[in-house]
Amino acid sequence: MIGGDAGGMSAAAVAKRRDPALEVVVFERGSYTSYSACGIPFHIGGEVDPLEELVARSPAKHRQNGLDVRMGAEVVGIDLAARRLTLLDGSEEPFDELLVATGARATPPPIPGVEAAEQARTLEDAGRLRSAVDADVDGSAVVIGSGYIGIEVAEAFVRKGLRTTLVDVADQVFGALDPDMAAGVQAAAEGLGIDVRLGTEVQEVLLDADGRPRAVRTSGGEVPARHVVVATGVKPEIGIAEAAGLRVGASGALAVDDHQRSVGADGVWVAGDCSESHHRLLDRAVNLQLGTHANKQGRIAGVNLTGGDLAFPGVIGTAITRICHLEVARTGLTEREAREAGFDHVAETVETDTRARYMPDSERMWVKLVAQRGTGRLLGAQITGGATAGKRIDALALAIWTGMDVEALQWVDLSYAPPVSGTLDPVLVAARATAKRA
Amino acid sequence: MIGGDAGGMSAAAVAKRRDPALEVVVFERGSYTSYSACGIPFHIGGEVDPLEELVARSPAKHRQNGLDVRMGAEVVGIDLAARRLTLLDGSEEPFDELLVATGARATPPPIPGVEAAEQARTLEDAGRLRSAVDADVDGSAVVIGSGYIGIEVAEAFVRKGLRTTLVDVADQVFGALDPDMAAGVQAAAEGLGIDVRLGTEVQEVLLDADGRPRAVRTSGGEVPARHVVVATGVKPEIGIAEAAGLRVGASGALAVDDHQRSVGADGVWVAGDCSESHHRLLDRAVNLQLGTHANKQGRIAGVNLTGGDLAFPGVIGTAITRICHLEVARTGLTEREAREAGFDHVAETVETDTRARYMPDSERMWVKLVAQRGTGRLLGAQITGGATAGKRIDALALAIWTGMDVEALQWVDLSYAPPVSGTLDPVLVAARATAKRA
Repeated sequence: MIGGDAGGMSAAAVAKRRDPALEVVVFERGSYTSYSACGIPFHIGGEVDPLEELVARSPAKHRQNGLDVRMGAEVVGIDLAARRLTLLDGSEEPFDELLVATGARATPPPIPGVEAAEQARTLEDAGRLRSAVDADVDGSAVVIGSGYIGIEVAEAFVRKGLRTTLVDVADQVFGALDPDMAAGVQAAAEGLGIDVRLGTEVQEVLLDADGRPRAVRTSGGEVPARHVVVATGVKPEIGIAEAAGLRVGASGALAVDDHQRSVGADGVWVAGDCSESHHRLLDRAVNLQLGTHANKQGRIAGVNLTGGDLAFPGVIGTAITRICHLEVARTGLTEREAREAGFDHVAETVETDTRARYMPDSERMWVKLVAQRGTGRLLGAQITGGATAGKRIDALALAIWTGMDVEALQWVDLSYAPPVSGTLDPVLVAARATAKRA
Repeated sequence: MIGGDAGGMSAAAVAKRRDPALEVVVFERGSYTSYSACGIPFHIGGEVDPLEELVARSPAKHRQNGLDVRMGAEVVGIDLAARRLTLLDGSEEPFDELLVATGARATPPPIPGVEAAEQARTLEDAGRLRSAVDADVDGSAVVIGSGYIGIEVAEAFVRKGLRTTLVDVADQVFGALDPDMAAGVQAAAEGLGIDVRLGTEVQEVLLDADGRPRAVRTSGGEVPARHVVVATGVKPEIGIAEAAGLRVGASGALAVDDHQRSVGADGVWVAGDCSESHHRLLDRAVNLQLGTHANKQGRIAGVNLTGGDLAFPGVIGTAITRICHLEVARTGLTEREAREAGFDHVAETVETDTRARYMPDSERMWVKLVAQRGTGRLLGAQITGGATAGKRIDALALAIWTGMDVEALQWVDLSYAPPVSGTLDPVLVAARATAKRA
């Protein structure tokens, strides 16, 4: 197994459990296994301490389960014909079955000084950032990129007392939502004191005499910044796999069949951020980096490489986060994505309440649905709102997954009680409103 | 329309909107329309004030929309042949189409002194109880019946400083859950200071010289109580409808077809707590009292009585509440219900977390699933746990609604982020565990 995070370790654990006689070796180039990259912003912001809380299972624990886990071990070459890996230290390791779970890498913009900027990808990054911020509570920060990680890190910086600027070249924050829904995210970020600058290109990280960031030069002027974090997205880490001749798909990730088998390479499996996934609505392969997919795909690969027969049924683009007290979630296609995919669609947004309106802790929430015109088939959903708003995306994900239309959805027997919803849950309210237009 | 709460008023509103020329008359014997009976415990406990907050739409508002709403108007007779209603004051009113939305009535045990006990059914009840409790903050209370309303009222009493005893003749609280899951509800109630007495029969409400309760005599001894609330469930209020010859089903509620048409009576419609509903898993009619069903059924009736063609797709027994900081939810069949219905089933319970375990506000939660043996078809789900646990029942309700099996459910693309779930949402964790047994 190349890679010791969600994809690699869940494959390893499942394979060893199914076949205790199997010799399972895991190569991890970093110093942690099975850690939550998604939790990094919460450590930076001081909500989660110590850093090791983010480790779900340590190398020692994995070893107790019979796995041979090699830390600080970077694989630099794969020889498929000889069934052999080469490591950075020059040593070689044979294999019968191979799992590639090499994850993803950041894509910093190619600008001067960017090498002095941080990322928030690994626990090593997290520890360094936290220390730097703790030592500089009156400082300033720039976060480049306003996706999930960018906004979460910006919030963490604000919690730590930094003057924080969030810069994005796009004309909206949070490109995972349509602009109308993303406006609520921007308002929440600004409400927390984050200075949001859109349509702004970052041109240079300006350094002081010690080579540390002092400011960021942008198309909108210079912004002081002792801390600069690049969160402009990631790309699948496929270097050694591609060099070995493994098939790369149109998404830029490794191509797999529905058993997580590398297309055209017997006995080679792929899981996690470096893998393609079948998108059930788009009916094509996409590359989505998310721990929950990595966990499932690793499990599928672990079952199949030990003689099982399990298919990964694909993804529909579900995602969620909590940003600046606002819950934000999506599933299926946004309106923009539906349009790009050629769906004739309708969209409707309802503003409603997280609980019965008279309950003291009720908050506003918004649900946007996208449905196919004519059939009413639900294509996508987006939610923003107060506490408890976001997880309603799962009911909508199930509706999309099972091919439900909005007319049928509005009558489903969903739960109601004043402390948790209005008489009709917001999911039903949104379905009803959308059904009128579909 | 006979009845001015959820069923009657949603039918009236929809009918008037679809056919503005229609003369729509609503007879309500009480003094409120469109109120939230489910919110009553929160007024008693002081969370929601004033009482009128529980009114979603007043008679005046309904009248602005063109409805002829008659308050304090009790219908005492229906003459189907003559198409005429008789009111308590002796007046008569003709109709072309009739909606029966008479709701439900409490079923107090037939014991001496019970007439001095309160119920928590109407806003009038709520106002009276709140005043009595506010005037007596050091007093004592007994709640008879440990269902949704009983436990919620007991919690309200504790909030108000009363020594509160909850008595049930059953050997578990909260019969809507299986005993193993209900044990958590009991622990939460006891943790709040409620004295829970199970397997205990109430024999008499003992009165003082003024005819007010002073204690309750039970099979387990006398319990002091200045306030006694009966919450032993309700029955459909079908007196005048039955007398008029409308068909009553085996559940004791009015029999309807899937268009909310009274079976065998042209131009007569039924909605809400007095109506039967088709249970999709049991494939028979049941009587469930819940505002969300009343709202939907009223809408269906309102569409159909104005020439539309809309079918109510039925119920699956979804319900939720928040009791003593514990969220409690169910959908489909409990293990007991599955057994009684003759399903060969398996059940599995997982203990997991509401959020990533390292997040500071993460709490424990439990998910119990019931699946058909062999096919793995999901038959039921129960959830107890901390904040945000309960609403996950909606994803499970959708899985049941669409006939999904637990093997398929475990791979669905549900949302993940540390502030709102573990890498695999508890729904997926539970499905995976149950799939191993099914």
